[in-house]
Amino acid sequence: MEPGEDRSARKRRAIMDAATEAFLRDGYQRTSMDSIAAAAAVSKQTVYKHFSDKQRLFAEIVTATTSQAAVPVDQDARSLADSDDVEADLRELGRRLLTLVMQPRILRLRRLVIAEAGRFPELGLMFLQQGVGRSGRALATAFERLTARGLLRVDDPALAAAQFSWLIMSRPINEAMLLGRHDPPDPADVLRFVDDGVRMFLKAYGP
Amino acid sequence: MEPGEDRSARKRRAIMDAATEAFLRDGYQRTSMDSIAAAAAVSKQTVYKHFSDKQRLFAEIVTATTSQAAVPVDQDARSLADSDDVEADLRELGRRLLTLVMQPRILRLRRLVIAEAGRFPELGLMFLQQGVGRSGRALATAFERLTARGLLRVDDPALAAAQFSWLIMSRPINEAMLLGRHDPPDPADVLRFVDDGVRMFLKAYGP
Repeated sequence: MEPGEDRSARKRRAIMDAATEAFLRDGYQRTSMDSIAAAAAVSKQTVYKHFSDKQRLFAEIVTATTSQAAVPVDQDARSLADSDDVEADLRELGRRLLTLVMQPRILRLRRLVIAEAGRFPELGLMFLQQGVGRSGRALATAFERLTARGLLRVDDPALAAAQFSWLIMSRPINEAMLLGRHDPPDPADVLRFVDDGVRMFLKAYGP
Repeated sequence: MEPGEDRSARKRRAIMDAATEAFLRDGYQRTSMDSIAAAAAVSKQTVYKHFSDKQRLFAEIVTATTSQAAVPVDQDARSLADSDDVEADLRELGRRLLTLVMQPRILRLRRLVIAEAGRFPELGLMFLQQGVGRSGRALATAFERLTARGLLRVDDPALAAAQFSWLIMSRPINEAMLLGRHDPPDPADVLRFVDDGVRMFLKAYGP
């Protein structure tokens, strides 16, 4: 129990935890509101009081899981804007970004969203907006500020932010999806992917 | 019937076509060798004569489908090595690459391989090797040659080849997977993704 959490918030969190576990283990279609209620040790009525239907519940899980990963990157991006060592701070942000998106829970959620995308494209849209979209906006703001400070030369900050993310994340995410790997990546690989991406980024957009 | 194709080759092709259709429509697990035989209008024995089991048959489909997309890119990469207008030829290769990987059949196959990756990681490995791996080797050879000719400045050709591909393909593939879209992309979007990728690539690796 988190400090200050009341009974209703505690139940809501128990439902979210049980539902996340069930969705990731059994897939979206095979998970019922009944089984979530049982796993969370609450009544089915309580589940429906907090979440109007299964799709809404799943949407909240996508938002909560991806936000959890986005917040530290937002913070790194804010301090990047004031950086005096852009290369070092880009590497630090890149390592954090890659480590967060490669968490087993996020990878499994990504796979589940891809599996359901034919039926529920709105879940994928949420995943994109909360993930790449959110960290992209924070990065774009930082790149704009660094360009104004003469430390980068970026003409299209939103594009450069997307390119930075893809240079670092594409290969490990693609391999995790196609090879069915959900383990956290080898720290040496994280360093290598990030260093390679940062090096190319600075060749293209360095002052 | 292809010219010069004998009866056995014709049957083999009918089985591959019927199986591709069935796998993409029903998924790997729900497709049986029986249903493939019926759809191809051959006996089950004939299916087993050509393909020892379902997994082998699926592997052949992954190889055939991804090869079909890789061959034109191989050819473009070979002529890129002798290019006198690297920017224009990179754009042309990029457009071909993106148009090929975004074919509905390749996207659906990618989704299917991702869905089966937990049980059959070897299918994903094949998809990677035949796809990004193969076009990557052809591109790396071209970048090495262009660097020797003073038209690019690439120190790690294999890395630069991977970066080129990811800069162009990441966003459209990721969106297609997460949003469940299998339509060919808007030609204007293809131009934009490729132009953005080529511009950054040449900023980083131009002479």
